[in-house]
Amino acid sequence: MSLDEYRKREFKQVGTRVRRPDGVDKVTGRAMYGADATAPGMLWGRILRSPHAHARIRSIDVSAALALKGVKAVVTAEDFGVPEDDFTRDVQDNCMARGRALYDGHAVAAVAAVDQATARAALKLIKVDYEILPHVTDVDAAMQPGAPVVQEGRVQENVPKGFSDNVTAHFEFGHGDLDAGFAKADKIVERSFKTAATHQGYIEPHACLASVTSDGKADLWCCTQGHFYVRTLCAGILGMEASQLRVTASEIGGGFGGKTTVFIEPVALMLSKKAGRPVKLVMSRDEVFRATGPTVSSSSDIKIGMTKDGRITAAEATLRYQGGAFPCGTTEFGTQAAFAAYDLDAVRTYGWSVMTNRPKEAAYRAPGAPVAIYAVESVVDELCQHFGLDPLDVRLKNAARKGTKSSYGPTFPDIGLVATLEAARAHPHYKAPLGPNQGRGLSCGFWFNFGGNTCVSLNVNTDGTVGITEGNPDIGGSRASISLMAAEELGIPYDNIRTIVADTSSLGYNDVTDGSRVTFAVGLATIKAARDAVRKMCARAAKIWGIDEEAVQWKDGAAVPAGPNAGKFPPMTLAEIAAVSAETGGPIAGHYEVNADGAGVSFGVHLCDVEVDRETGATKVLRYTVFQDAGKAVHPDYVEGQMQGGAVQGIGWALNEEYIYGEDGRLQNPTFLDYRVPVASDLPMIETVILEIPNPGHPYGVRGVGETGIVPPLAALSNAVSHAIGLRMSELPMSPPRILKALGGS
Amino acid sequence: MSLDEYRKREFKQVGTRVRRPDGVDKVTGRAMYGADATAPGMLWGRILRSPHAHARIRSIDVSAALALKGVKAVVTAEDFGVPEDDFTRDVQDNCMARGRALYDGHAVAAVAAVDQATARAALKLIKVDYEILPHVTDVDAAMQPGAPVVQEGRVQENVPKGFSDNVTAHFEFGHGDLDAGFAKADKIVERSFKTAATHQGYIEPHACLASVTSDGKADLWCCTQGHFYVRTLCAGILGMEASQLRVTASEIGGGFGGKTTVFIEPVALMLSKKAGRPVKLVMSRDEVFRATGPTVSSSSDIKIGMTKDGRITAAEATLRYQGGAFPCGTTEFGTQAAFAAYDLDAVRTYGWSVMTNRPKEAAYRAPGAPVAIYAVESVVDELCQHFGLDPLDVRLKNAARKGTKSSYGPTFPDIGLVATLEAARAHPHYKAPLGPNQGRGLSCGFWFNFGGNTCVSLNVNTDGTVGITEGNPDIGGSRASISLMAAEELGIPYDNIRTIVADTSSLGYNDVTDGSRVTFAVGLATIKAARDAVRKMCARAAKIWGIDEEAVQWKDGAAVPAGPNAGKFPPMTLAEIAAVSAETGGPIAGHYEVNADGAGVSFGVHLCDVEVDRETGATKVLRYTVFQDAGKAVHPDYVEGQMQGGAVQGIGWALNEEYIYGEDGRLQNPTFLDYRVPVASDLPMIETVILEIPNPGHPYGVRGVGETGIVPPLAALSNAVSHAIGLRMSELPMSPPRILKALGGS
Repeated sequence: MSLDEYRKREFKQVGTRVRRPDGVDKVTGRAMYGADATAPGMLWGRILRSPHAHARIRSIDVSAALALKGVKAVVTAEDFGVPEDDFTRDVQDNCMARGRALYDGHAVAAVAAVDQATARAALKLIKVDYEILPHVTDVDAAMQPGAPVVQEGRVQENVPKGFSDNVTAHFEFGHGDLDAGFAKADKIVERSFKTAATHQGYIEPHACLASVTSDGKADLWCCTQGHFYVRTLCAGILGMEASQLRVTASEIGGGFGGKTTVFIEPVALMLSKKAGRPVKLVMSRDEVFRATGPTVSSSSDIKIGMTKDGRITAAEATLRYQGGAFPCGTTEFGTQAAFAAYDLDAVRTYGWSVMTNRPKEAAYRAPGAPVAIYAVESVVDELCQHFGLDPLDVRLKNAARKGTKSSYGPTFPDIGLVATLEAARAHPHYKAPLGPNQGRGLSCGFWFNFGGNTCVSLNVNTDGTVGITEGNPDIGGSRASISLMAAEELGIPYDNIRTIVADTSSLGYNDVTDGSRVTFAVGLATIKAARDAVRKMCARAAKIWGIDEEAVQWKDGAAVPAGPNAGKFPPMTLAEIAAVSAETGGPIAGHYEVNADGAGVSFGVHLCDVEVDRETGATKVLRYTVFQDAGKAVHPDYVEGQMQGGAVQGIGWALNEEYIYGEDGRLQNPTFLDYRVPVASDLPMIETVILEIPNPGHPYGVRGVGETGIVPPLAALSNAVSHAIGLRMSELPMSPPRILKALGGS
Repeated sequence: MSLDEYRKREFKQVGTRVRRPDGVDKVTGRAMYGADATAPGMLWGRILRSPHAHARIRSIDVSAALALKGVKAVVTAEDFGVPEDDFTRDVQDNCMARGRALYDGHAVAAVAAVDQATARAALKLIKVDYEILPHVTDVDAAMQPGAPVVQEGRVQENVPKGFSDNVTAHFEFGHGDLDAGFAKADKIVERSFKTAATHQGYIEPHACLASVTSDGKADLWCCTQGHFYVRTLCAGILGMEASQLRVTASEIGGGFGGKTTVFIEPVALMLSKKAGRPVKLVMSRDEVFRATGPTVSSSSDIKIGMTKDGRITAAEATLRYQGGAFPCGTTEFGTQAAFAAYDLDAVRTYGWSVMTNRPKEAAYRAPGAPVAIYAVESVVDELCQHFGLDPLDVRLKNAARKGTKSSYGPTFPDIGLVATLEAARAHPHYKAPLGPNQGRGLSCGFWFNFGGNTCVSLNVNTDGTVGITEGNPDIGGSRASISLMAAEELGIPYDNIRTIVADTSSLGYNDVTDGSRVTFAVGLATIKAARDAVRKMCARAAKIWGIDEEAVQWKDGAAVPAGPNAGKFPPMTLAEIAAVSAETGGPIAGHYEVNADGAGVSFGVHLCDVEVDRETGATKVLRYTVFQDAGKAVHPDYVEGQMQGGAVQGIGWALNEEYIYGEDGRLQNPTFLDYRVPVASDLPMIETVILEIPNPGHPYGVRGVGETGIVPPLAALSNAVSHAIGLRMSELPMSPPRILKALGGS
């Protein structure tokens, strides 16, 4: 289908704001989250964690804990084998420290007991003999030769000599002649930036229930963004075959990337294996902050040259990512994303992965991109300010578009950046007046979007309703959007369809719910599965009518005789075909398995007005508008929710959220009281404008929308605050103390 | 494949006695049964039951119960609508009496409360104003004009004038000229028989957890033989769409036909709907006996004519089935099965369905056949005795075989009766000496076996293991047999496969686990799904090798280049193909949906030696051997277990088990103390001989084996006891008092 045909396509159900299928369950408390799973004879697990940022574990004496009445198992690293591949070993070692505790909160032992009180008491009886080692938590400090080494002898991929062992990888992307580019510039701005680590802040702590049998089978219930991947990791760690481990994903109370790996699941499985009983593990909030995967902190240097009419001539970025005590997985994405919004002749980005004595980083919505684009968009803004140019005009002049060779390599197909920028320029927000101490900020944002391994089965019930089985936990409305796409394709009402998330034994492998991949990839697989079912229903109708399968078409939810048979028989609806399916061969289903590509990149533009209180340093967000290309917004409520949610999390990142470490390397604010996320009363209504530039890689033009929204707020806020106070800000969060300091206060 | 090819086929895994996948779970208590499901905020339900066999419900006052602290909902028939179709309405009315209580134990109201004690207390506060009506519990009495009428105005299908309204259907099967046949006989025996109602005696009481949301969705966990059918029934009763009700089957602690319908599930759903919280309902043993579905009781008249050399010339049976307070579903099967083992020129069977004031009958292993064949085989035995003929010779002389026009219509394809009879004759048991007061009995047995709607998905994991999804609760080892058939087809080890029972939202419709259909139908679908996956794996290998798909064959678990490409590439194993599946297109799966036919009838022969204690009337089973055609015994342990289990249940039915009603129409023995099932110490080892006459309707020749085994014991025991005491017995159970009475005692 050509883009024009896409645009002309009229959807009957896709694009409507139907009732969300999980809404009532969630507001009435009926939804079953990770901590809601129970099993007869269940034990309670609990994990002992290092209070030290870095310490050798000389010995662990668990005898007193084991002797406590009601304690059924104690687990330490010694209970686990050593996985052969580095990646699995790192995941395991992050779940249970082997030899050394690498950060404050690192698990060192775990118990399973008959109740929570006994488990807590048992932890106190475990004696760990620590030898405290020097530690490092700052990304720049950790890169220096002579810095305390977090892990010795790790692979240093493409890392030049002279760096600390903490530097595990170096990346470089780009093209063109930088020197020539900078030579053409009328102005070059170079500036360094720093961002703090933040946490995804999901409401639901990690929780799981594990049950292992003595014959080697296991079941695991957990809250996760990817139970198939949990199976892979846990099976690898426990030395099990995938077929013997059945993982069921609970309803999920937020993930945002933070539930894409395992922290407690292998521990619960090992406790259950040793105890011979089911074991439940639920993290406290303190554990969530100290021992799950926050995002990276970063430092960066940006250099951009621009002509006085706003053409960027060259751009360079060096990005240093602190990923905690294990090799960082975020760096490459951020390094690739930095200049993705621009059509540049000369561009180069360098990325550095750095280990510190902090919890290993996990994904957090568009991982790596926000802090990279924050720095780039700040410098672009500074150049616009320098020349007195309209920042939207400058973005439009330099915008990546169809045919642009991107800064990270690929040439873009149809993309929506220009349309998004034009929508922002046309919006009243862009011309709204500002008062004193107020400023307006703007930033572009970008995310790649993923496809990936995906399986969908679609079953036609004999009453004409349809069940859809997919394998991705629903973190952003995917059950609704999948049902909508199936309804569209089958021609039956949305309410007649129920989409469920199957466990790992009920469906083929599905990649994690990440990369904004689900509405795209599962949607695509659903449409294909629906077409498979439609083909079979046409064949059943043909059988009933005694005509060729090819002479039957599907129209408005019914099989219709076509060609020479047109009009010979009345249409047979899906319900009519389903009702007699037992007589025509049996149940009717459609299936599709695919490793989907063609996800289609996504761009957004955020506009933000703030007012800074010069006395307190507090920043109030006055107005906020998100413009984003959704490809096709299958369920606009959810799309808007994603855009709003991303913006709000970015606002928190920009203004307040940060991991604060003491000199002792201990996290000082592992609670929602001291780690402040924005709440409703802090925020204006986040306005949203959905653009729909169809993605040619999807039958309905869908692109992922979940991640791009968190990318622009950091720079949009920083630019807005900078304009409001007349000073260029270059460190996040712009908390009141930091703003006061910038203003020359205390 | 021809039968000879079948016989020559060498299986590598099918036919081996592999470890059972549910064994450890069951012996360690890890298996989750119906009563093990819990949900946050769960309430406990409890049902108030009629103490009267028949009573008009003038009124129900629930106000005091509702006012009790902790009571969250009360349900009566008024809360339900009236389903349009008779069948669904009957199911509903059996779950909750509407207007009249039709039997002792019939549900009249239900409560949901915060704990069990409160629920129990609330039941006592419900005031039911009953007007007691006359009742009838005996099948013969209920047929008479003037008998108390259980339900007025029910359809009387083919019922001649002059019978009570309690007679709801009349069936007739057969062919040939009876008068001419009887005229040829040298001896005609006419005899009447009576059998008592028995219960399946499953250990696990019915249990479920229901959770209904205010937006009309519901989840139901329950122990059942058919959760898809539970969905159909409950959705019909609750007025829901199938897609909105997700039913998950628990592990099941026995069913034997008794868990093929619903008793408490609609009540739990309605309680949950009214209370807005999850509700758990677990039956007590008393409730199981009084208010689930025991088998029929029966009375029958048999007339058979035989020549002196043992040729049956004509046969006639009239079978009256008491099916409780609703139209009986068992009659037709029993009426068809009565003479299935014989090749007869003149045969006629008549069946009568009769309502009484008893709980509605449910299926119980080969429903209807045991009591019909009991009577027939008793008369055949009596004729053999009369002529001094060997009972096996007479069966062989008259045996149904390939080409026989069966007494119920169809002409038999390859069947195993003759082989089974010959195996019995060759067995040492048949010639073992007998002592005083000892007797040997013999009987043939038969069951139709079902096919039916079946769906299987087979997913190839990237580590080379395989997950299979099927939709039939495993009551007889189906997970093992399905994994074995998949292992055979795929050429990978059994241990690399895990078969699970999917919920109703994860798979297409599957008929109930009944009719001995699962190993046949699900096995067939599994083999076809495996072949679908094999085809895809060959295509992936072809893609990797760059050759045509057609030029790849599957051999010993690997794709092998064939034809002109033979030997050009080394074989790629399933694990190797799976490992790179993401690069060759995505996950690999096989699927199959079918309404399977060709199940293949099953025959068995049982030999039984008993000794009767003439002082106590007690019968001791000395020796027992089962000969049965399994088609192909996929997992011989389970096949033998089915044969043994059927024999034991039949022994209980023959010797001890019976529903005893008082004059007041109340069940007098609703406990396992007073309703005595045989236990291990009552029994000898049940010997088994598996015959394998391939079923041409299945790729591996499989036939169902679960039900036939319960058919012969009734007559085998009756014939053995009759020989031991020298008197022809004609009523079951042959309990000590009844034997003493026959012997002229008290």
